[in-house]
Amino acid sequence: MGRVFNFSAGPGALPVEVLEQARDEMLDCAGTGMSVMEMSHRSEAYMAIINQAEASVRKLMGVPAGYKVLFLQGGASLQFAMVPMNLAGGASQAADYIVTGSWSKKAMKEAKRLLSEVRVAASSEGEKFSRIPAPEEMRFNPDAAYVHLTSNNTIYGTEFSAFPDTGKVPLVVDASSNVLSRPMDIGRLGLLYAGAQKNLGPSGVTLVIVREDLLGKREGLPAMLDYAVHAENGSMYNTPPTYAIYILGLVLSWVEKQGGVAEMERRNLRKAALLYRAIDESGGFYRCPAEVGSRSRMNVAFTLANPELDKSFLKLAKEAGLVSLKGHRSVGGMRASIYNAMPEAGVAALVEFMGVFRAKHG
Amino acid sequence: MGRVFNFSAGPGALPVEVLEQARDEMLDCAGTGMSVMEMSHRSEAYMAIINQAEASVRKLMGVPAGYKVLFLQGGASLQFAMVPMNLAGGASQAADYIVTGSWSKKAMKEAKRLLSEVRVAASSEGEKFSRIPAPEEMRFNPDAAYVHLTSNNTIYGTEFSAFPDTGKVPLVVDASSNVLSRPMDIGRLGLLYAGAQKNLGPSGVTLVIVREDLLGKREGLPAMLDYAVHAENGSMYNTPPTYAIYILGLVLSWVEKQGGVAEMERRNLRKAALLYRAIDESGGFYRCPAEVGSRSRMNVAFTLANPELDKSFLKLAKEAGLVSLKGHRSVGGMRASIYNAMPEAGVAALVEFMGVFRAKHG
Repeated sequence: MGRVFNFSAGPGALPVEVLEQARDEMLDCAGTGMSVMEMSHRSEAYMAIINQAEASVRKLMGVPAGYKVLFLQGGASLQFAMVPMNLAGGASQAADYIVTGSWSKKAMKEAKRLLSEVRVAASSEGEKFSRIPAPEEMRFNPDAAYVHLTSNNTIYGTEFSAFPDTGKVPLVVDASSNVLSRPMDIGRLGLLYAGAQKNLGPSGVTLVIVREDLLGKREGLPAMLDYAVHAENGSMYNTPPTYAIYILGLVLSWVEKQGGVAEMERRNLRKAALLYRAIDESGGFYRCPAEVGSRSRMNVAFTLANPELDKSFLKLAKEAGLVSLKGHRSVGGMRASIYNAMPEAGVAALVEFMGVFRAKHG
Repeated sequence: MGRVFNFSAGPGALPVEVLEQARDEMLDCAGTGMSVMEMSHRSEAYMAIINQAEASVRKLMGVPAGYKVLFLQGGASLQFAMVPMNLAGGASQAADYIVTGSWSKKAMKEAKRLLSEVRVAASSEGEKFSRIPAPEEMRFNPDAAYVHLTSNNTIYGTEFSAFPDTGKVPLVVDASSNVLSRPMDIGRLGLLYAGAQKNLGPSGVTLVIVREDLLGKREGLPAMLDYAVHAENGSMYNTPPTYAIYILGLVLSWVEKQGGVAEMERRNLRKAALLYRAIDESGGFYRCPAEVGSRSRMNVAFTLANPELDKSFLKLAKEAGLVSLKGHRSVGGMRASIYNAMPEAGVAALVEFMGVFRAKHG
């Protein structure tokens, strides 16, 4: 069949131009006579690839001097443990977590295994995670080693529109699902991490951007779990996930060619507006559980007023080439993930389908 | 340029048929209308891929019942820490290491961070790691939680021809560089791990085969560092490195089509014999630092009697399409890595080149 519009929450759609280039270079990349997968990670050809990827991250995200850019493994889930291991422990056993969904809860759970004083700075769990707490609801511990938040919540379809002011306490952001979708002021953060499989590339590589003064606070960590070791070795302490980093580099080049993060944000705003309008103007046929001010531009979670129609919706959508729309079991209904690589035409096709489906069943 | 013969120690060459299939499926795999990289790891299409990969591991390697097959991240280097974390600690703080090269030393160093009683069961460091210690040289601690060895040493070009008998103490094998190159009796092992980037696929995925009774011995480990968590979740506790596992599956299918591990061993024996003969019969022009009985079938390390010719050798070899032959800095000279995917024609071309080079300079 032809290409579909893939609304998967992650791993998610990639730009078709990236896949075409990867296809064309599969047996011989840049005249080396080999695939990127076959290159020694210390070869000149591969060093050019990883260095270019880092340079693109720095440029596109406006990473200031004094920050290291690392390509690690293990996804956000390993960061849930590496953050407390590296930034706290030892002298400071305190960390604050802003709890806005399943992933921030998981992150906090890992911290609790490792630290004795993990506190909830704010939570919307009592409201089924339907909103992002306002800054005035947040209670920060000035002695915490860091404050952690999840910038976008894939399951509940909510997103921080701005980062809270945590004063001198470093802010740690899990930006797995909205990195590169909007400008972020890295200079205000202590650490940002992101599993690649939504906006950056394939699963298997994790981007970490960390302020240098936060490195080396702990001694005796296993080498692979120590940010300082990875930083000293330019993400080459051991063999990095070379092919995943190559694809990530291609995705970043694609973003740059499109006009950078500012242009991504413009497109994402248009895509999200189109889809939320279709929901809001459906006379209650479709409903969005997330509060208006907290809505995610990346993951649009919505339910059908009549859940008996869910199966039919998903089946007909698939037949129309609109796939992976099933919502997470904790919310039910549908979820359209519209990351950077989802073209506006894909959202338009979904909105059109939703209209036709409603006309038939409404 | 055309495809080269790539003698890289890893990431290394992949079968061209695997790369061709990956290329052909890049934009649309199995009629899904998407790349494997874009598939939700929980989709039916992807579950078929990972399940097939596991089934192939079990079949090709003859994994007995009572063992879990896991696909993890972080390479062998993360296993250096996960093995002591999971198998020892708590009640038993003791582990034995057989030290046969840089990688076993690194593995032992990580264990020492985590355990109080790490001992050397045998070592050939005094002989510059030029051989594998004989079983009668090994002194095992019967109270150790495990014995660790590296089955093939990429840098020094040595390889265990058989595993020692460790009695009731589980044997843990880092088989990163010779997995699938020869039959291995998994039933004799407690745990086997292998970074994929030599014989299994691209970097970014690590195969772990672990005896089930060794799982869950430790409580309170970070989830991502706990074998039991990965085992309970079928390697899907978090998003696995989906594309790397897909390529690994294609490589395993290729091995199966070639005739399985037994056929790989026959080819590897022929390739190694051809290359060692060219060295041994060069009248001292080429020399092999590894002792005859300990020689690796995977990594043939050799030096030129006159090291001033090294640069010229490497330059001319590259011009002849024979690349990545430079030896590791700890040994110097050359290293030809001839993993499963290196065709016999590649070794024949190298041997021919070595003869011509010697005729000119010998």
